[in-house]
Amino acid sequence: AVHGARKMEDYGRFLALLVSALLVGFVSVIFSLVWVFHYREGLSWDGGPREFNWHPVLVITGFVFIQGIAIIVYRLPWTWKCSKLLMKFIHAGLNTIAMILGIVSMVAVFEYHNARNIPNMYSLHSWIGLTAVVFYSLQLFLGFAVFLLPFAPVPLRAALMPIHVYSGLTIFATVIATALMGITEKLIFSLKNPAYSASPPEATFVNCLGLLLVIFGALILWMASRSHWKRPPEENAKVLRPIGGTPEGAEAESTMTGGSNADKPDLRINSEAARKQNLKLDEAGQRSTM
Amino acid sequence: AVHGARKMEDYGRFLALLVSALLVGFVSVIFSLVWVFHYREGLSWDGGPREFNWHPVLVITGFVFIQGIAIIVYRLPWTWKCSKLLMKFIHAGLNTIAMILGIVSMVAVFEYHNARNIPNMYSLHSWIGLTAVVFYSLQLFLGFAVFLLPFAPVPLRAALMPIHVYSGLTIFATVIATALMGITEKLIFSLKNPAYSASPPEATFVNCLGLLLVIFGALILWMASRSHWKRPPEENAKVLRPIGGTPEGAEAESTMTGGSNADKPDLRINSEAARKQNLKLDEAGQRSTM
Repeated sequence: AVHGARKMEDYGRFLALLVSALLVGFVSVIFSLVWVFHYREGLSWDGGPREFNWHPVLVITGFVFIQGIAIIVYRLPWTWKCSKLLMKFIHAGLNTIAMILGIVSMVAVFEYHNARNIPNMYSLHSWIGLTAVVFYSLQLFLGFAVFLLPFAPVPLRAALMPIHVYSGLTIFATVIATALMGITEKLIFSLKNPAYSASPPEATFVNCLGLLLVIFGALILWMASRSHWKRPPEENAKVLRPIGGTPEGAEAESTMTGGSNADKPDLRINSEAARKQNLKLDEAGQRSTM
Repeated sequence: AVHGARKMEDYGRFLALLVSALLVGFVSVIFSLVWVFHYREGLSWDGGPREFNWHPVLVITGFVFIQGIAIIVYRLPWTWKCSKLLMKFIHAGLNTIAMILGIVSMVAVFEYHNARNIPNMYSLHSWIGLTAVVFYSLQLFLGFAVFLLPFAPVPLRAALMPIHVYSGLTIFATVIATALMGITEKLIFSLKNPAYSASPPEATFVNCLGLLLVIFGALILWMASRSHWKRPPEENAKVLRPIGGTPEGAEAESTMTGGSNADKPDLRINSEAARKQNLKLDEAGQRSTM
């Protein structure tokens, strides 16, 4: 009973964070729309400033908000009864949408620059942004080839999973850092008389948007790095079927901090090291988020 | 023998990453000096641009490089024979130096702004930068009170450790993001004729500095999040002394990704759940990095 209460409390905490993240992400998207419609020229695809404006809107919607949701999609407890394969498709699908929106957002800037004879790719924002898009596409392609297609052997999946998780989170953080640089550039370039340094309402409003992006990133990274919110390992793993079927692999999840999984049920059963290791490898190969 | 070879290989990989991180961090500091001495006005404390120049130099030296080293200091294998208390002092000491350099770097900007009647705290860079310094100081103070002073009870240490680790890494990433915004601002403001968009040598050089900071951050975050590079748990924990003394808590470390600790020795012995949990709590309370 005490254990059940703890579990419910933990579930409540997860839900509170999820709702906060969704709210902050949603408000960020709204802020980006208010920015371009209320303070700027609006949206259209005409080579002018209204085409540029698609850049922040698509980056914040796709490359920040949707990417963030894609990262934590395995952690939603009500999806744990869905098949792992379905969840992989959802994870890959959301990331594909994010990638497409990210690429379209870059096209908008290139077309705007070219129409106005502004050089491309001179700023640190553009260097890191393009690098992030390239790594993101690579990550999506490799993730698809290794974890979604059925060909990669389990030891390869196990070896690549920590790298996949680390790269995903690092790219996500880099994308947010790039967005902050972009906001800085745009406010300096577009606010003249009054300048950015005179803090007109647009400056304060868009600074708040920047803060929201940092808070959204921090919430997603917290949810993604709590091991006790991971999707439980498959009871019937398909690649290497363990004798038994007890989710003994729960041990291997443990935690990145030691001690935070104190309220996890002790499901451990005695078994030879080989089986245990198989299960760990299997689990690593089957699971796509920390 | 196979296990020993694996351990050596893993040690070699850690060393290679450590040397890379130190090199990239050191080169970043050199780049910041070349920036201010070769491309800008140099350094002095006179209210002019040379006082401002302390800002990037001190941030990159203290708030990026030294903070990065402070984060991974527990992971250096040759320190594992040193007492945990000594290592905590080194961790706290390096972070204190980083905090002082960070604060002095902010003073340099405020004095420069005030001498030239430039408004303070209008940019997103300044908002997020000040927030990072405040959280960093809070983190240092709380870390000192909870993990270094002997008063905090073990369950409190265990509860706060995951938050301490997460906050530390998130603040570190935020500091790097803030540095990238600062580079963006400074290049736009100081490069006129040729402008930033004309890519003069200074622009390309400082963009490379920005890339180095991202690589440094990525290396530190990788080293800090590999659970198999953690300092092993204390054999004789002081607060709750386990019966026995086998580092059974090694199990609790496991990994945040599952499977990556496959080459860890299986030191597990059968024991009742209570003892195990005590050890986990104890370990969490004693350990200051993931």
